[in-house]
Amino acid sequence: MTNKKAYKGNVIYSKDKDTLIVYDNSYVIVQDGRIVDILKDLQPDFPNENVINYEGKLIIPGFCDMHVHAPQFLQMGIGMDKELLDWLDTYTYPNEAKFKNIEHANEVYSQFVNELLRHGTLHVNCFPSIHYEASSILFKLLENKGVYAFTGKLNMDQNSPDFYIEDTNKSIEDTEKFIIEHKKSKNVTASIVPRFAITCSEELLNGLGNVSLKYNAPVHSHMCEAVNEMKICKELFPNYKNGAEIFNQNNLLGKTPTIMAHCIFMDDDVLELMKNPNCMAVHCPDATSNVNAGGIMPVKKLLDLGINLAIGSDVGGGTSLSIPRMIATTIQHSKIRNMFDNQYEAVNLQEAFFMATRSGGRYFNKVGAFDKGYHFNALIIDDFNMYGDNYSSLERLERFCYSGDDRNIIKRYIDGNEIEIKI
Amino acid sequence: MTNKKAYKGNVIYSKDKDTLIVYDNSYVIVQDGRIVDILKDLQPDFPNENVINYEGKLIIPGFCDMHVHAPQFLQMGIGMDKELLDWLDTYTYPNEAKFKNIEHANEVYSQFVNELLRHGTLHVNCFPSIHYEASSILFKLLENKGVYAFTGKLNMDQNSPDFYIEDTNKSIEDTEKFIIEHKKSKNVTASIVPRFAITCSEELLNGLGNVSLKYNAPVHSHMCEAVNEMKICKELFPNYKNGAEIFNQNNLLGKTPTIMAHCIFMDDDVLELMKNPNCMAVHCPDATSNVNAGGIMPVKKLLDLGINLAIGSDVGGGTSLSIPRMIATTIQHSKIRNMFDNQYEAVNLQEAFFMATRSGGRYFNKVGAFDKGYHFNALIIDDFNMYGDNYSSLERLERFCYSGDDRNIIKRYIDGNEIEIKI
Repeated sequence: MTNKKAYKGNVIYSKDKDTLIVYDNSYVIVQDGRIVDILKDLQPDFPNENVINYEGKLIIPGFCDMHVHAPQFLQMGIGMDKELLDWLDTYTYPNEAKFKNIEHANEVYSQFVNELLRHGTLHVNCFPSIHYEASSILFKLLENKGVYAFTGKLNMDQNSPDFYIEDTNKSIEDTEKFIIEHKKSKNVTASIVPRFAITCSEELLNGLGNVSLKYNAPVHSHMCEAVNEMKICKELFPNYKNGAEIFNQNNLLGKTPTIMAHCIFMDDDVLELMKNPNCMAVHCPDATSNVNAGGIMPVKKLLDLGINLAIGSDVGGGTSLSIPRMIATTIQHSKIRNMFDNQYEAVNLQEAFFMATRSGGRYFNKVGAFDKGYHFNALIIDDFNMYGDNYSSLERLERFCYSGDDRNIIKRYIDGNEIEIKI
Repeated sequence: MTNKKAYKGNVIYSKDKDTLIVYDNSYVIVQDGRIVDILKDLQPDFPNENVINYEGKLIIPGFCDMHVHAPQFLQMGIGMDKELLDWLDTYTYPNEAKFKNIEHANEVYSQFVNELLRHGTLHVNCFPSIHYEASSILFKLLENKGVYAFTGKLNMDQNSPDFYIEDTNKSIEDTEKFIIEHKKSKNVTASIVPRFAITCSEELLNGLGNVSLKYNAPVHSHMCEAVNEMKICKELFPNYKNGAEIFNQNNLLGKTPTIMAHCIFMDDDVLELMKNPNCMAVHCPDATSNVNAGGIMPVKKLLDLGINLAIGSDVGGGTSLSIPRMIATTIQHSKIRNMFDNQYEAVNLQEAFFMATRSGGRYFNKVGAFDKGYHFNALIIDDFNMYGDNYSSLERLERFCYSGDDRNIIKRYIDGNEIEIKI
């Protein structure tokens, strides 16, 4: 008797940024939660009861949302015409401050994790609130569902409202405590999450950098996001050449896996720093801050430079947890950017899908693709309600990204286990 | 006993392009399918059984999709990286040609009309195929559901594939016959639908113009859509100053209600023609042709000039039948346009919602708003799955457009009658 499973369907995944591999009508062989092989035909003695038949459907890797604010889930789609700093003051800080209440955190984060999974996000890099207990709840909820995740406790000790600010030393101590207390998790890793340079003193950033080095903890923050944000950074940190150096010189950029959201306005010095294989820039095409504040990341330029790139929903600055929708938006917005500034080509489906799967998942352990040895973290896509027929698997993948939604995701697997969601 | 109904909820509609009117916790009084009043309190003798209670929910006008290709419904989300004319040849013409088969037409158009209604589109301007019988089926399906619509039979007699082209005289005769045969409908009006100047000879356009004048039939076509399309138009029609004059001089622009999709590249002469109150330009923010072919309509400029504007899904060049989603996309794309070409302001929610409701519906009879005497063509929006609370009705409307979908539309009314859809 084999303990292997065989998942039959039209299998698609990214080989590299330019190549989507398709195995039509084939079998993904999975043992102990990992991919052993992809076969056109099963061996004759393979037990029938171990074949899971998704014939005619697509089997694709689960998505990576590499920048999402868990507590902002409450305010998705609200205040979309507000400028970044005004939006933070009006909606975001009051909302995040509510997570001091543990019951509230438990209720909202339970919904949040369920919604992530519903949209096919199996790998996630979360932005939490400043609250230790709430952040711990989020960590455990992700862990319990098996989601591959980075998440931590947010830090902010300046330029923040009275009701939502920390003492510098307490913030550093709590962060270290959070990392020690949560370090043994299987798929979830505790990360360091300074909000952005504006709300963090140099002392705080320096302390967090030391914690990051001590525990090899990943770092997650925002950088080079909006024109006024960069202007204020320059005023607050006059001794640093640019926003990236503020992180870099405090051991928060590239010493450990470092994930920086937005990265729209980067000069050559910053691009050079971001080429470090420990760094990843996250494109959030739907983020209000991007759309409102005058910037669309020149994605193709960064891809060509070999900078690691992922896609993020940036909810609640973004309006949807759907990463396939963000794939389509990445492509569309790059085309519009290209109309007016055609020094870089537009992004194509291969590149955007790569960013949202294999590339986004690179700091987790072998996820986002179906190479041998990779975890079977997969989605089954049924496009039953999309009426045209006779389309190729790649055309159907494109259609799912542009015109599908969570209803087309009929199954989710992590480490070969089916993940149940609440409908 | 009154035969009036009272619909209780948070009522929102456009007064004009700059103003959304909100009546929170109020009653829309409806008699014989039309709005009589909107009241904060009911008269004491108003019968309880005639109150339909949607307390806490939003009551908004049904949407107008003023440019959608019914037969292209089959190819939504496919071939999104192709250039317009290549996309037509590869996907669109072969797909539309299938509507020669009446069973196919009946099946697909039934699904199409159901999907329109599912997404809250109660008023529609359809682009059909060249086939008389299929177009008649679409007309009747719309009529049977009570949808307010313009639809006709498509015309194309040149620069079209052998399997999908008409004889010039037959095309004109069939169009006249179609209008005569379908003229008695209550909510649906037969229209003249030349595909675009490229596929229509001068003789055909001239003949269609005469039919339009004779029967006062509305006209629906594409214009000033893409750079290469305009270049070919100029080569094919060297005696006409621009694409609009080709229609204008053949009595197909502004003599009767005229709805022109795209209208991206309009010089001052064309803008002058489009100021005619009989003309409407339709912005299709998600259309491949727009996003791929180098143009985003300068919406704010056209609004400020007083040109009638609507929103269209442009399915299958567009990727979704959701007009609320197109409202959000209109705003976002105008912001991105504005980053690179800031001579015009970005579009706001008030303006985009106006385009998608009151303005889009102006050629139908009193639809798209809740003035006294207007038809009660309305949607009930339940944002149960959108977690934040304490938001104003306008914030919730914004959130529905950005982050909601058809599942948030729990009821649809046309002329005061609830419309059932297949789930």
